[in-house]
Amino acid sequence: MLYFDHAASSPMYEEVIETMAEVMKRYYGNPSSLHKAGLEAERLVRRARETIAAALHASPGEIVFTSGGTESNVLAIRGAAARFAGRGKHLVTTSIEHASVYETFRWLEKQGFRVTYLSADETGQVRLDELEKALTDETILVSVMYVNNETGRIQPVAEIGRMLKDRPKTLFHVDAVQAVGKLDVNPAAIGADLLSASAHKLRGPKGAGVLYCREGLELEPLLPGGGQEGGLRSGTENVPAIVGMAKALRMAMDERQQFLQRTAAVRARLVQCIDSLPQLALTGSRSPEEMAPHIVHFSFPGMKAEVIVHALEQHGIYVSTRSACSSADNKPSRVLSAMGLDRSRAASGIRISFSAMETLDDADRLCDALRRTIELLSPKGAAARVKEKNGGHLCT
Amino acid sequence: MLYFDHAASSPMYEEVIETMAEVMKRYYGNPSSLHKAGLEAERLVRRARETIAAALHASPGEIVFTSGGTESNVLAIRGAAARFAGRGKHLVTTSIEHASVYETFRWLEKQGFRVTYLSADETGQVRLDELEKALTDETILVSVMYVNNETGRIQPVAEIGRMLKDRPKTLFHVDAVQAVGKLDVNPAAIGADLLSASAHKLRGPKGAGVLYCREGLELEPLLPGGGQEGGLRSGTENVPAIVGMAKALRMAMDERQQFLQRTAAVRARLVQCIDSLPQLALTGSRSPEEMAPHIVHFSFPGMKAEVIVHALEQHGIYVSTRSACSSADNKPSRVLSAMGLDRSRAASGIRISFSAMETLDDADRLCDALRRTIELLSPKGAAARVKEKNGGHLCT
Repeated sequence: MLYFDHAASSPMYEEVIETMAEVMKRYYGNPSSLHKAGLEAERLVRRARETIAAALHASPGEIVFTSGGTESNVLAIRGAAARFAGRGKHLVTTSIEHASVYETFRWLEKQGFRVTYLSADETGQVRLDELEKALTDETILVSVMYVNNETGRIQPVAEIGRMLKDRPKTLFHVDAVQAVGKLDVNPAAIGADLLSASAHKLRGPKGAGVLYCREGLELEPLLPGGGQEGGLRSGTENVPAIVGMAKALRMAMDERQQFLQRTAAVRARLVQCIDSLPQLALTGSRSPEEMAPHIVHFSFPGMKAEVIVHALEQHGIYVSTRSACSSADNKPSRVLSAMGLDRSRAASGIRISFSAMETLDDADRLCDALRRTIELLSPKGAAARVKEKNGGHLCT
Repeated sequence: MLYFDHAASSPMYEEVIETMAEVMKRYYGNPSSLHKAGLEAERLVRRARETIAAALHASPGEIVFTSGGTESNVLAIRGAAARFAGRGKHLVTTSIEHASVYETFRWLEKQGFRVTYLSADETGQVRLDELEKALTDETILVSVMYVNNETGRIQPVAEIGRMLKDRPKTLFHVDAVQAVGKLDVNPAAIGADLLSASAHKLRGPKGAGVLYCREGLELEPLLPGGGQEGGLRSGTENVPAIVGMAKALRMAMDERQQFLQRTAAVRARLVQCIDSLPQLALTGSRSPEEMAPHIVHFSFPGMKAEVIVHALEQHGIYVSTRSACSSADNKPSRVLSAMGLDRSRAASGIRISFSAMETLDDADRLCDALRRTIELLSPKGAAARVKEKNGGHLCT
C-alpha cells in the first residue's frame, strides 16, 4: 500500500504517539488546577507553546491553541470581523481557499459583511491586481492562504503583506495549514496578523491546531468560558495533543532540509511522469519554487476524478480528488474553476501528496499504476483491451 | 499522592490510552477521504457514534462530536440562539452554570438577547418557582446543568423538561458534563433537546466532547467548512479521541454499578468526616440521591480556599477550590453565592471529587489530613500549637 494523501492527513511520527501516550498516562491534571498535578500539566502546555512559538519565529504569547485548522481559521476570521466591524464591513478573500475559510466568509456575507473573492491565474496564484482594486477604506480583513491545499501553489503572501503594510485598519490572515512544517513560515516577516496551522498535516495528532495572533491584537472569542488561552479560547487544554503537536513541529523543522531534498526528488519524478502521459495535464506553476514541496496535482480531462482514485486504489495506491473535506462532493473543483480551468479539467483533478517517507521507487510505482489506469480508462486503452482479446499487443 | 480532583480531569483508563495509540498508528486516514484509509477511519467514527448513542439512549444521527464540553455548550447555546432568534429573544439559564455556559449567555446579552439567571436554594438546587415565573412566549431556550460541577448537586432536569413540554418554541439544553458516565443520562426521557458531555471527565481523553442534538433540530454551526458532523461542526474528525471517548464511556457504563457502590461508600465516609469537624460546613443536600456520587463539597468559613488546597497538598492530597476553570480567580464562588451562602462560606469552598479507584482508606487519609490542616490553620489550632509548645496536649 502506498499512501499519497499526506495533505489530507499525514501518519503521525511514532515518537509523537509515544510521547502523547506518556502524557496521557502521567500528566492527567487539568492545567487550571492549583495543585501540583495541574501545575505539571500547565508546564507542559507552556513548554509546547514556547516550542511552537520558536518554530514560527513568534513569541509564546502570540500562540493560541485550538482544536485544529478549521477552528483556527474560523476564530481568526469571525473573531476579527466581529471585533472590528465598527471600522468597516468589507472583507477580502479568494475563491481558492479551504472550505473552512471560504464558508466562513459566505456566512459573514449573510451577517451583513461585503466580501470580495479574488480569483487566481492559470498557475493557481491569486491575482494581486484584483486585490489592489478590491481594497477600500472599509476593508478590515484580507485572508489568503499560504499554500493551496489542492494544487500546492504557493501564494504571494509576503507581497500581500507589503501591500497591506500602510493599511493599519486592514488585518491580514494567512491559512498556513499546508505550509507550516514544510516551509519556513514567519508570520511577522510576511506581515501576517493572524496565521493558522494544523497538527495532523505535519505528522502530529488530529484535533490540535494553532492560531498565531500578533501581540496586542484582540479578537472576539468563539468559545467563551473558563478564559483559557488568554481569554481567546476557553476549554480545558488538550495537553497530550498540544505536546504532540509541538513535538511534531519541532521534528518537522529539524528534518526540514532532508524533507525538502527528498520531496523535491519525488516531486520532480512525478512531474516527469505526468508530462510523459499526454492524457494528463499538470496543474500549477512549472517553477518548483512556486509550488509546495509535497503536492503534485494533475487533471485527466474527460475522466471523473473519483474513477481515477478508485482505479489507483486497485493498485494499492491512495491519492485524492481534492481537499478531503470536499471529496464527497461531485461538482467540479471550486479551486480549479477559479483558476479558469475548463469543466473537464476541473472535474478530473487528482492530488498526489507525500512526505519525506515516500521514495523515488514509490513515485515510480505510482507512475506505473497511473499509466495502467490510463490504459484501462481511456478510449485508446479500451481499444487496446479489444486488441488484446483478439491476440494483439497491449498498449502500443 | 491522592488525587481527589476527578471533576477537574480524571486519569484516563489505561485501555483507552492503548486503543488511542493503536488508532493513531494504524488509522491515520482522513475520514472524508474516498480511499480505503479514509473509509477505515470513517468506520471507526461511525462505530464510536453508535456506542455513544447507545449509552445516551439516543440514535447515532443525534450525536455530534466536538472538541470538548466547552465547545458542546457554546455550540448548543449560540447555535440555538442564532437559529431561533426570529422566534423570540428571551433566554433562561442559572447562576450556578459552568463558565462555558454562563459566559456564553453573558455574551448573548451583549448581542441583544434578554437573559434570566435563576438562583438556587441553599442545597444548591435551581429554583423552579423562578423558572416558572421567567418563562414567556419569547423564551426560546432554557439551559440548566444536570449536575453542578462545584457542589455536586443534581438538578431537577426531568422536572424542567416536563415544565417545558407544552412549549414547543422553547428548547431545553442540559450541560451534562458532570453527569454522563456517572448517572444514567437519557436526554429524550428528560425532555432535553440538546445535551453536552465531555470525555476527560469520565476517564476519556481531553479534547473530545459530544453534543446530543435531538433529531430534526437544526442549529447554526459555530465552525463552518468541510461540512463534517452533518454540517453542524466542520473540521477533520479527531478519530483517536472519538474512539477513546466511546471506549471510556462504554467502560464507565459497564462499570457503573460498581462505580456507584464504591463512590457511595467513599462519599458517605467523607460526609461523616466533614460532619465530625465543627469548623467545616457541608454543602448541598443531605440526601445522597440528590447529590452526584463523585463529588463532596464543604466550606471552611474564615479560611481562604486556596490556603486549604495548598495545606492538603503538603499531605500529598489534591483537591480543588471549585471548577478548575475558575480556580485562579480569587473572588468568592459565583455558585455558592447564588445559593445564598455568605461570603465567608462562598470564599472557602473545597471540592473533593473521586472515582471508583479511590478507597475508604484513601477517604480516611484525606479526613486525617483535613483534621490536621484544620488544627494547623484554625485559631483553635494555633492555640493548641501554643499549648503543645508549653507541654500541653494537641487538639483537645
